[in-house]
Amino acid sequence: MNEVVNCASYINGRRVANVEISNIGEVLQHPEQFVWVGLHEPGEETLQQFQKAFCLHDLAIEDAHRAHQRPKIETFGDTLFIVLRTAQLNEVYHRIDFGETHFFVGSNFLITIRHGSSISYADVRSRCESTPHLLRKGQGFALYAVMDSIVDQYFPVVEGLEEELQGIEEMVFKEKPTRETTENIYQLKRQLLDLKRAVSPLIDICNRLMRFDVKLISVETQPYFRDIYDHALRINEMVDHARELLNTALEANFSLISISQSEVSKKFAGWAAIIAVPTMVAGFYGMNFKFMPELSWHWGYPVVVIFTIFSCAIIYFLFKRSGWL
Amino acid sequence: MNEVVNCASYINGRRVANVEISNIGEVLQHPEQFVWVGLHEPGEETLQQFQKAFCLHDLAIEDAHRAHQRPKIETFGDTLFIVLRTAQLNEVYHRIDFGETHFFVGSNFLITIRHGSSISYADVRSRCESTPHLLRKGQGFALYAVMDSIVDQYFPVVEGLEEELQGIEEMVFKEKPTRETTENIYQLKRQLLDLKRAVSPLIDICNRLMRFDVKLISVETQPYFRDIYDHALRINEMVDHARELLNTALEANFSLISISQSEVSKKFAGWAAIIAVPTMVAGFYGMNFKFMPELSWHWGYPVVVIFTIFSCAIIYFLFKRSGWL
Amino acid sequence: MNEVVNCASYINGRRVANVEISNIGEVLQHPEQFVWVGLHEPGEETLQQFQKAFCLHDLAIEDAHRAHQRPKIETFGDTLFIVLRTAQLNEVYHRIDFGETHFFVGSNFLITIRHGSSISYADVRSRCESTPHLLRKGQGFALYAVMDSIVDQYFPVVEGLEEELQGIEEMVFKEKPTRETTENIYQLKRQLLDLKRAVSPLIDICNRLMRFDVKLISVETQPYFRDIYDHALRINEMVDHARELLNTALEANFSLISISQSEVSKKFAGWAAIIAVPTMVAGFYGMNFKFMPELSWHWGYPVVVIFTIFSCAIIYFLFKRSGWL
Amino acid sequence: MNEVVNCASYINGRRVANVEISNIGEVLQHPEQFVWVGLHEPGEETLQQFQKAFCLHDLAIEDAHRAHQRPKIETFGDTLFIVLRTAQLNEVYHRIDFGETHFFVGSNFLITIRHGSSISYADVRSRCESTPHLLRKGQGFALYAVMDSIVDQYFPVVEGLEEELQGIEEMVFKEKPTRETTENIYQLKRQLLDLKRAVSPLIDICNRLMRFDVKLISVETQPYFRDIYDHALRINEMVDHARELLNTALEANFSLISISQSEVSKKFAGWAAIIAVPTMVAGFYGMNFKFMPELSWHWGYPVVVIFTIFSCAIIYFLFKRSGWL
Amino acid sequence: MNEVVNCASYINGRRVANVEISNIGEVLQHPEQFVWVGLHEPGEETLQQFQKAFCLHDLAIEDAHRAHQRPKIETFGDTLFIVLRTAQLNEVYHRIDFGETHFFVGSNFLITIRHGSSISYADVRSRCESTPHLLRKGQGFALYAVMDSIVDQYFPVVEGLEEELQGIEEMVFKEKPTRETTENIYQLKRQLLDLKRAVSPLIDICNRLMRFDVKLISVETQPYFRDIYDHALRINEMVDHARELLNTALEANFSLISISQSEVSKKFAGWAAIIAVPTMVAGFYGMNFKFMPELSWHWGYPVVVIFTIFSCAIIYFLFKRSGWL
Repeated sequence: MNEVVNCASYINGRRVANVEISNIGEVLQHPEQFVWVGLHEPGEETLQQFQKAFCLHDLAIEDAHRAHQRPKIETFGDTLFIVLRTAQLNEVYHRIDFGETHFFVGSNFLITIRHGSSISYADVRSRCESTPHLLRKGQGFALYAVMDSIVDQYFPVVEGLEEELQGIEEMVFKEKPTRETTENIYQLKRQLLDLKRAVSPLIDICNRLMRFDVKLISVETQPYFRDIYDHALRINEMVDHARELLNTALEANFSLISISQSEVSKKFAGWAAIIAVPTMVAGFYGMNFKFMPELSWHWGYPVVVIFTIFSCAIIYFLFKRSGWL
Repeated sequence: MNEVVNCASYINGRRVANVEISNIGEVLQHPEQFVWVGLHEPGEETLQQFQKAFCLHDLAIEDAHRAHQRPKIETFGDTLFIVLRTAQLNEVYHRIDFGETHFFVGSNFLITIRHGSSISYADVRSRCESTPHLLRKGQGFALYAVMDSIVDQYFPVVEGLEEELQGIEEMVFKEKPTRETTENIYQLKRQLLDLKRAVSPLIDICNRLMRFDVKLISVETQPYFRDIYDHALRINEMVDHARELLNTALEANFSLISISQSEVSKKFAGWAAIIAVPTMVAGFYGMNFKFMPELSWHWGYPVVVIFTIFSCAIIYFLFKRSGWL
Repeated sequence: MNEVVNCASYINGRRVANVEISNIGEVLQHPEQFVWVGLHEPGEETLQQFQKAFCLHDLAIEDAHRAHQRPKIETFGDTLFIVLRTAQLNEVYHRIDFGETHFFVGSNFLITIRHGSSISYADVRSRCESTPHLLRKGQGFALYAVMDSIVDQYFPVVEGLEEELQGIEEMVFKEKPTRETTENIYQLKRQLLDLKRAVSPLIDICNRLMRFDVKLISVETQPYFRDIYDHALRINEMVDHARELLNTALEANFSLISISQSEVSKKFAGWAAIIAVPTMVAGFYGMNFKFMPELSWHWGYPVVVIFTIFSCAIIYFLFKRSGWL
Repeated sequence: MNEVVNCASYINGRRVANVEISNIGEVLQHPEQFVWVGLHEPGEETLQQFQKAFCLHDLAIEDAHRAHQRPKIETFGDTLFIVLRTAQLNEVYHRIDFGETHFFVGSNFLITIRHGSSISYADVRSRCESTPHLLRKGQGFALYAVMDSIVDQYFPVVEGLEEELQGIEEMVFKEKPTRETTENIYQLKRQLLDLKRAVSPLIDICNRLMRFDVKLISVETQPYFRDIYDHALRINEMVDHARELLNTALEANFSLISISQSEVSKKFAGWAAIIAVPTMVAGFYGMNFKFMPELSWHWGYPVVVIFTIFSCAIIYFLFKRSGWL
Repeated sequence: MNEVVNCASYINGRRVANVEISNIGEVLQHPEQFVWVGLHEPGEETLQQFQKAFCLHDLAIEDAHRAHQRPKIETFGDTLFIVLRTAQLNEVYHRIDFGETHFFVGSNFLITIRHGSSISYADVRSRCESTPHLLRKGQGFALYAVMDSIVDQYFPVVEGLEEELQGIEEMVFKEKPTRETTENIYQLKRQLLDLKRAVSPLIDICNRLMRFDVKLISVETQPYFRDIYDHALRINEMVDHARELLNTALEANFSLISISQSEVSKKFAGWAAIIAVPTMVAGFYGMNFKFMPELSWHWGYPVVVIFTIFSCAIIYFLFKRSGWL
């Protein structure tokens, strides 16, 4: 795949030209234009070309190259550097695939750098280009459009985990406790923690975009970031909600393990009693006393057999009634 | 049901006329009037008409259409957009039905949009109209009246959950531990979390209405929002209280499961001992030694029988006294 | 009991006259006087008379009538409205009886309204009247005096709960685990939560009285509210301390239930072994083989009996030494 | 012991004279001097004399008399009132003895009042007098010196508790679970909570001494209070660390109780199997069937005995291998 | 090893000379130069020489001598004193070795003091000297270089602990529960707490370096400290993540202990039933009744044997199917 996916300049919300790296300096002279660059896992060389063209800071370029950053927003002079994590449910391996997208935002440019698993932003770009009255708001709106598509991808991920939680609930309350339930709870907890780590810095990032860094984000674009902020809050809340329920499920699971252990003990005790009684009776009539009148009775044996069967039945019903069997 | 439930203009706290959408623009010219619109699950078209008439922001209209927002307050220019969640106890299915109500508040209008399960606000409107000396305070008071009726509906919901908690307490402390108790605890926890999610943003919303957005809410209406704030705090506290008690109940339930398991073990041990002794005695007199003087005693058998019954009784009383039976 | 317990005017810290409701307006004209009214569960009518006389806000009067408010402080114009909860240990039913006291504080009046279980403030009033050099500081000091007496009543309540905690500790560590211990822990937890709910808003209330609402509370009276603040902090701390210990006690209780269950198992195993051995031996000599030389030995029977008693004794001592019996 | 342990005036860091209570007023006239008073559990009378001499506030004197305050710092006019708790390990009774020290700090005086268990501050005073170049910084440095010695005494206390925690760790992981382990964990938790209660307000107190109350504490003395602040932070951290480890130890202990209970069950099951097999075999050959050829074999008996011993051995080795015995 | 590892002066990012202690005063006169001193566990004498040369504060020197400080940043006049903890995985003893490094930063000097286990900073110095265009930024950059190398050493430590956590996960979910698992969880928890204690103050330290103490750290060096800040945040997050997972692992471990105990009970119950049935049957045919027709049947014995084997097999399969065996 090409490292430079797209590099175009926009005037008044309409794409005017594809720009070569060598021409960028010239284009940036025109304040009424803005340049929107899309990179995908760029090599060191490509990054250095863009660093020179846009005057980006060493430390930010280093971060953009290495990836595996935590989501953050940093200002270097009048350039913003933003790191976001992207998430996708991997249905095959039943896990979340995380990626990273980095943004450089200047007064008239936006660079997006995709790392790892994530969908292409070509769709977002073409959707923006189809609404020039919005894209006219400048590179801030383009930034919003990409960020919004990233945050929206979290919803199916969280909903996937919520479904998994529902599955666990059913395992806990409907079936016998197994090792798998406990392991599933643990794995879901881990995924929720990973997701939380990706999402929670988003709130702070949006907050700062809405308030402080006013020069790069025009006043009329700010409500859009409040929209993302709101989505980030909701995802966060859903994750916390799932986590708290999961903790309770873990404890409930534990209670039910104990109850089911208790039921095993009761069942065992019940059957032990039913078997112990005939054994005891048989032992008695196995004694070798010379004078045991019952032994010589003609109906002795059947009477004893019937008696023991009868008392076993009584014990069985008593235990049944008190719920031990 | 009609999408536009009600649309009237008020002067000095008294309803002067029902307003058609087409006339709204004209009415809004008169600063001494205010318009109060009540919508119920409006379609996209209706919303767009009102958006045009009241100059509402795209993003807010989008939220108002989609519903399933978290409770929030947002300012778009000089219009306030408020989202609240409504709650009702569903006695039949034994769960909480949540709905949503959205508000647009401008300098001389109030729009309420009901989604999902919630009672109609016609009652609130007529109660307001019956106290023109209060409604004269303007659209801020109308906003208060609707919000107050929403918050007041939380009280029976919380009280319903508190009753359920009491039921659980009785199940935990009065009866034998069952799977149902644990599942009920889990379900109540889930309901409390849902409720908390609906109520806790209320505090922040009221706080902002009381303090910052002063232009739309007149100074003399502010104490009314403090009243709602106070109710929101109380509901929040009741929910937290119930949650903390529920956690303790879960742990207490767990302790009692263990104690009851312990009691099963003790009972089992006790009866095992009572049966094991005669079995052992009988075994002894079942031995085939040639020279066992007791075997030939005439009273051997009855003596042994009486002896074993007697020792069983002693064991029984010993266990009874030490609480194992 | 009379609704209006007391209604007197004070000049320079000395009571000058009992005031009738009808005269209050006149008395309030004199800024050097202040009026101190004590009400007890007043009816709607009485409240309305006072509302008119002192120009109190509708919402505050409504709260004062309904009671069951959470502790709070609110300003309505230049009147303060304060709600406190009172607490008393009910020795008979072994629970805490909560009441409520409401205060209206104006530039030269103080109204106290008692609801539910609480001691009369007549004592506080007469103690104040006996120190006119302090009461001269004005209605702020009278407010302090009543609040102080309310807060001081919390100490015996907390100490009562601390004693109960000590009782629970003894039950947990000294005696066998019982259902009662767990239930007592739960009930104490509930009482601590109730108390916390009553006390914790106090800190915020005192804080505001110490700092912000300077006009009503003279500078020289402020240190007195700091004193109450300090007491509220201490009670809060005692409650938190007790709660954290109680949580640990619950977990310790749980560990000890498990240990005691373990001990039951061990004891059962020990005795089972002691009984199983003679049963096995007896079984062996109950076999019907033609050629079992021991059976025809003259001393066979006594030897076997002595041997089994001996081996039982050995097993007993082995288990005793390893702590299983 | 004398109530007034020491009362001296200092000029330029050197002690110039012992001062009588009656002369204090005169001495305080000289701004270049400062008076350092040391009291030990003073009676009401003594306190009143000092109150008059130094113009101290009623409420502070009341606190200083009653003791049992929580650590705090309060300003009364231009006098500071500080309450600290002192702690000492009581090796004999294996507990922490808490005491209290109160400070009054004015522009040229320092009063220390010791209550309950604590070492004398005579040593601190003589160490200060031996470094006049430091004591010259004024009563602020004297305050630092005493506070520092109080905070330094916390270190051996915390270290003592850390040793106890180590002892508990060894009990938990090296030995069989006992009731004592659980009770020790509980007692240590209680001591840590008590210590926390004494230490945590220190941080706030030092913070305020470092920043706000600048007039009484000269700029060059402030770094010294930062030093105490740092120590207070460290002690706090040590306590929190110990508490968190202790919580984990409690849970680990609980896991190990369960494991050891599981081991009991396995051992019991193992031995039960070993005894049950010969019992069953013996039972079989105790049957009275007429035609059981084995019974009349000459080697029947020894073969059966050897066979059962052999199968018991096999069972024993099987259980041994799978870790049940 | 030498106490003074290195002591050199730099102009414009290039080393110009090694400096003797006696000459330092002279060198510090030149504001265009800065001196970078590296000490390793210096004695009291050496420290006093440097204290005199650089005019350092008594309290800071005392801290630098004693070591065992918590990480902190303090300003003494226009000198910064910073304490950091260093960490290295000790592969041999399977633990974390902590050390300490102290920094004195002045307007044109940097002193680093190493205590305990840590790598030498000679490498950092030579790397700095190889990039004079960066070192030219002054002593602030040298400080950054050393701090960065310290923080970077935390990553392998945290990753080592994460691997250990993975090992524990496998022990918990793949193998039978053992005492070792629980002890390992406890030890890892302790190491995570130790690490947390070392890392978490870093965030505050970097925060202050990035913002407040602007004079010593030039504006263009500040982004570098933001870089360290970011790493510190990441390490912190990794530690918290591991701690939360570990807590869940502890609870999961506990659930699995219970499940495995439950399995023991079931297995025991299953085998007990299989053995109890033939014992009971044999007991019956061991009765001595005169008239038991089966006893005299020729095929009685083999029929009974086959019947009991058959019923044991049925019981075995029943238990097998229901998962008890």
